[in-house]
Amino acid sequence: MPPLQNDVLIRALLKKPVPRTPLWIMRQAGRYLPEYRATRKQAGGFLTLCKTPELACEVTLQPVERFDLDAAILFSDILTIPDAMGLGLSFSEGEGPRFSRPVSSMKDVERIARTRPMDGLGYVCDAVRMIRHELNGRVPLIGFTGSPWTLATYMVEGETSREFRKIKSLLYTQPDILERLLEILSQAAADYLSAQIHAGAQAVMVFDTWGGVLSRDAYLKYSLGPMQHIVSELLRLETPHTVPIILFTKGVGHELADLAASGCHAVGLDWTMELDQARAQVGSRVALQGNLDPAVLYAPDAVIRREVQKVLEKYGQGSGHVFNLGHGIQQYVQPEKVTVLVDAVREFSPAYH
Amino acid sequence: MPPLQNDVLIRALLKKPVPRTPLWIMRQAGRYLPEYRATRKQAGGFLTLCKTPELACEVTLQPVERFDLDAAILFSDILTIPDAMGLGLSFSEGEGPRFSRPVSSMKDVERIARTRPMDGLGYVCDAVRMIRHELNGRVPLIGFTGSPWTLATYMVEGETSREFRKIKSLLYTQPDILERLLEILSQAAADYLSAQIHAGAQAVMVFDTWGGVLSRDAYLKYSLGPMQHIVSELLRLETPHTVPIILFTKGVGHELADLAASGCHAVGLDWTMELDQARAQVGSRVALQGNLDPAVLYAPDAVIRREVQKVLEKYGQGSGHVFNLGHGIQQYVQPEKVTVLVDAVREFSPAYH
Repeated sequence: MPPLQNDVLIRALLKKPVPRTPLWIMRQAGRYLPEYRATRKQAGGFLTLCKTPELACEVTLQPVERFDLDAAILFSDILTIPDAMGLGLSFSEGEGPRFSRPVSSMKDVERIARTRPMDGLGYVCDAVRMIRHELNGRVPLIGFTGSPWTLATYMVEGETSREFRKIKSLLYTQPDILERLLEILSQAAADYLSAQIHAGAQAVMVFDTWGGVLSRDAYLKYSLGPMQHIVSELLRLETPHTVPIILFTKGVGHELADLAASGCHAVGLDWTMELDQARAQVGSRVALQGNLDPAVLYAPDAVIRREVQKVLEKYGQGSGHVFNLGHGIQQYVQPEKVTVLVDAVREFSPAYH
Repeated sequence: MPPLQNDVLIRALLKKPVPRTPLWIMRQAGRYLPEYRATRKQAGGFLTLCKTPELACEVTLQPVERFDLDAAILFSDILTIPDAMGLGLSFSEGEGPRFSRPVSSMKDVERIARTRPMDGLGYVCDAVRMIRHELNGRVPLIGFTGSPWTLATYMVEGETSREFRKIKSLLYTQPDILERLLEILSQAAADYLSAQIHAGAQAVMVFDTWGGVLSRDAYLKYSLGPMQHIVSELLRLETPHTVPIILFTKGVGHELADLAASGCHAVGLDWTMELDQARAQVGSRVALQGNLDPAVLYAPDAVIRREVQKVLEKYGQGSGHVFNLGHGIQQYVQPEKVTVLVDAVREFSPAYH
């Protein structure tokens, strides 16, 4: 593999000095880009796009070609693991994911325990290798997984949920089933990220979309605990360079200190958190990633520039900040607005270093 | 009006000594009750149920008849104000609310400014009077409104949203339109609660369902500010007894201190907050209401009892706690589980007073 020419992201994640604040955008390879929509149309569907390494590589590269970003992130779905466990994943237009064989009993969980999901995830590692080759050292590649709790919510609910009735019933009624499921998913997610790292991922991120729907005790046990297992496993890997680990729980709020104490290198923040308060609380221990409100990208250019400045000012002087949105970029954003964002971060951030 | 026989709720909201922790349940008159479903079926629709005082009175009383609760809460919808402003509210099965004439321009807002919503909300005050008469002093009646920000989200989005694209675009692009809309809604909500109080509501609550999707600065300006206006207006009312004001922002997190400083008497907490931390932070200033995870009601009786004890223990000794769920009761809960909950609060709470 060629040497990394732009290591600003990696250095910031490790809180080393940088000349400017690095920047990438959650869901940067996505529907807001016309070139993405064209490739997806050509693929004939979202899952085919994920499962065809050439196409996944193509869309991963698209935002890096168009914008001056400091990282590429593997194009994939958070539900690849349960898909490889045989739950029958499908996506219908505008409906979100659906599993034809959701999990409801210990028998279901034990059936899952006997699967070998990594056997079915070779396409992801193929994509990682292909992307690394195509990137040719320009920027680092970030790998990712859904958090075990987040995977479990989809696997038990069978689809996107608003009330999480099924998984919470399980939590309060038959916690042994949930615990066993999370144990399996923790190991699967650790194996999955290890494989991505071996294939070439230079940083990894765990997306915990639904940890924020849990009470504190339940969060620590069912969301953070499994993520800690992943972190511990990854920290034991022998790699030529440190591979920073980013954890992101949407709506994490009061559990920030616990998240930062997990051993991870960086914590992602949504836009409802205050970067200055978060830095005061955990900034000596971890880097922080975030946290512009994604809706700012619907604003006039001058407002985008002002809001970018506010985020940079909130974090303040010094390394340890990775600029990002507080959640994934939305599909109705005009790509030109991302250029405004990128230019603003490039223009304003050197003053903070 | 007959004197109040059970004033435990009112006393707790004012942090006066009580012999036990009072209890009511958000959305206690709702679809989980077979008698509610029967009345709703008879009414032929949700809006008819809201707009027919006899039927609204009937369903308000149902949970009070069935369970040993310490309050009734007016049966109504949070969107009655925009409905009375002529936005064309409808509910389709399983879809949630929808407005046929949503707000998108200053012209729309000025059209709304010329309406007199209170002229169309007499049915709510009629229901309040009727409920007070039927309650005959058994327990206090809580009136309520949606918060101006929450009303504005529905009025601008036109329906339930996940990304809040339209209202956030307005916020970042044409804040003057949003500010004017919130100004109108703040006064309308204050008038609405004043009218409910004059008709007989003995406590009032503002439901801020969507304040949690805002960044801190935006929350203070667009969600809390308008609620503060309502609180100020209500505190100026001359009433024979103090009418406690409860504010509830779902997912409020870091803004708890600001909410508590608004002048309200009590703050509602969702289940992701820790009652002990919240009490340490703001408990000397306000009472706290909450915050059992609504999903606990799917659990076996012994687990419900254990979780009730945990909530009581978290708040600890002394007055100023109103037991409630952290969000509305869900439709699939068995009514028998509510009996278990009520009995547990009655059994365990006297030890804390």
